[in-house]
Amino acid sequence: MQSGDYFTTRATIRKFSDREVPEALVEETVRRAMKAPTTGNMQLYSVIETRDPEHRKALAEQHFNQPASTGCQLMLTVCADFNRFTRWCTINHADAGFDNLLSYQTAVTDAIIFAQQLTTLLEMQGLGVCWLGTVTYNADKISDLLGLPTLTVPVACLAVGWPEEGGEPTERLGVEAVLHRETYRQDSDEKIVELFRPKDDYAPNQKFIAENGKENLAQVFAEVRYPREMNESFSKSFLQLLKDKKFI
Amino acid sequence: MQSGDYFTTRATIRKFSDREVPEALVEETVRRAMKAPTTGNMQLYSVIETRDPEHRKALAEQHFNQPASTGCQLMLTVCADFNRFTRWCTINHADAGFDNLLSYQTAVTDAIIFAQQLTTLLEMQGLGVCWLGTVTYNADKISDLLGLPTLTVPVACLAVGWPEEGGEPTERLGVEAVLHRETYRQDSDEKIVELFRPKDDYAPNQKFIAENGKENLAQVFAEVRYPREMNESFSKSFLQLLKDKKFI
Repeated sequence: MQSGDYFTTRATIRKFSDREVPEALVEETVRRAMKAPTTGNMQLYSVIETRDPEHRKALAEQHFNQPASTGCQLMLTVCADFNRFTRWCTINHADAGFDNLLSYQTAVTDAIIFAQQLTTLLEMQGLGVCWLGTVTYNADKISDLLGLPTLTVPVACLAVGWPEEGGEPTERLGVEAVLHRETYRQDSDEKIVELFRPKDDYAPNQKFIAENGKENLAQVFAEVRYPREMNESFSKSFLQLLKDKKFI
Repeated sequence: MQSGDYFTTRATIRKFSDREVPEALVEETVRRAMKAPTTGNMQLYSVIETRDPEHRKALAEQHFNQPASTGCQLMLTVCADFNRFTRWCTINHADAGFDNLLSYQTAVTDAIIFAQQLTTLLEMQGLGVCWLGTVTYNADKISDLLGLPTLTVPVACLAVGWPEEGGEPTERLGVEAVLHRETYRQDSDEKIVELFRPKDDYAPNQKFIAENGKENLAQVFAEVRYPREMNESFSKSFLQLLKDKKFI
């Protein structure tokens, strides 16, 4: 019954028109997204809207000037935020013990739930959204640009605008790859190969492999797009940020 | 225009009826949720369904037997999972460098996006959902129960069933508390007090304060519900789990 609905046809948008996104629309959508689940009703997130062209340019640089970041109308950086809640506690003479890893994990969860609800609500109004995974790469510099206080770390950035062209729904794994019953199913190598075959066989991915001079798609992911040295380098700066922001 | 729609009226459900949740419904809903955004289309998550009564009992114990965990029809534990993707890389002779903090952060993001999309889709079909924040408290023991491999960590658990009674939408902060423009706004103490006043004044919260013998709501949160010693103790076991699972 549900084929063809928003949820099954949605796609990431990376090309946006020049049409403005009204501020009232952003505000009302944030208000609605705040009804999403949140740990103990603490709402451990903030969202910083970057709309000013100069600010957008500076932020896009931290996202390596990828087209979605330079071509969007605004960016919404969602932060795991235990700062506001901790200040409320301190003002009320309550001993707030949220400067630790568990509290960071809790705030990240709240922030990503909120960011995803925001995405759904924006997209359902016809807006295009692109999550910029680069937010964690330069989280320290983004944090400086946005003036983030302690116990506040950027964990999601949505590039937002009206679609210039429709997005292409991408191929996904089959449900059997992701859904386990009662315990985690340890698949054989043959089964893993079979589960990923739709990705391997997907025509646009074949082009990817040739362009990058690799033997297969897995090598493109592990050695070109997300190489070990890059992951390890950004892990170091992200860990340092968690320390600087007093979560560790 | 949108007041009264699903998104603004949704509420967490903690009391479920005995009515069964069909397996086909779970499977089809997981399939649809898999169209949510995911980093580089890597889908770095898995979901383990706990339906067997004995397994449910054992898992509920790790959630401190809170009513939603003992009274639900099934539990869906969503994991940050770089195991499947890493195995695919290794089989394809690609050097997978995902045993680090950045990769954990990426997988958590994917997992929470997916869990939230799953929540929305389940609730829109009339099911009730309760996120069990306790999943990170006993993540090590839950990991053992579910047989999780390396690079796989439980980060969300949804208790699911048909509602026995409707949920109460809870009070939320105003949009101005959460939405910042261009840079993070540092509010004065007076402003923080004003932003949280709707929570302080909310009648059910007043009852909470009296029951716990505290002076105000902030003290209930910081000293009774989420005390420092508890947060610090569970931070230690969660950090150890991240090490055991090779993310750190």
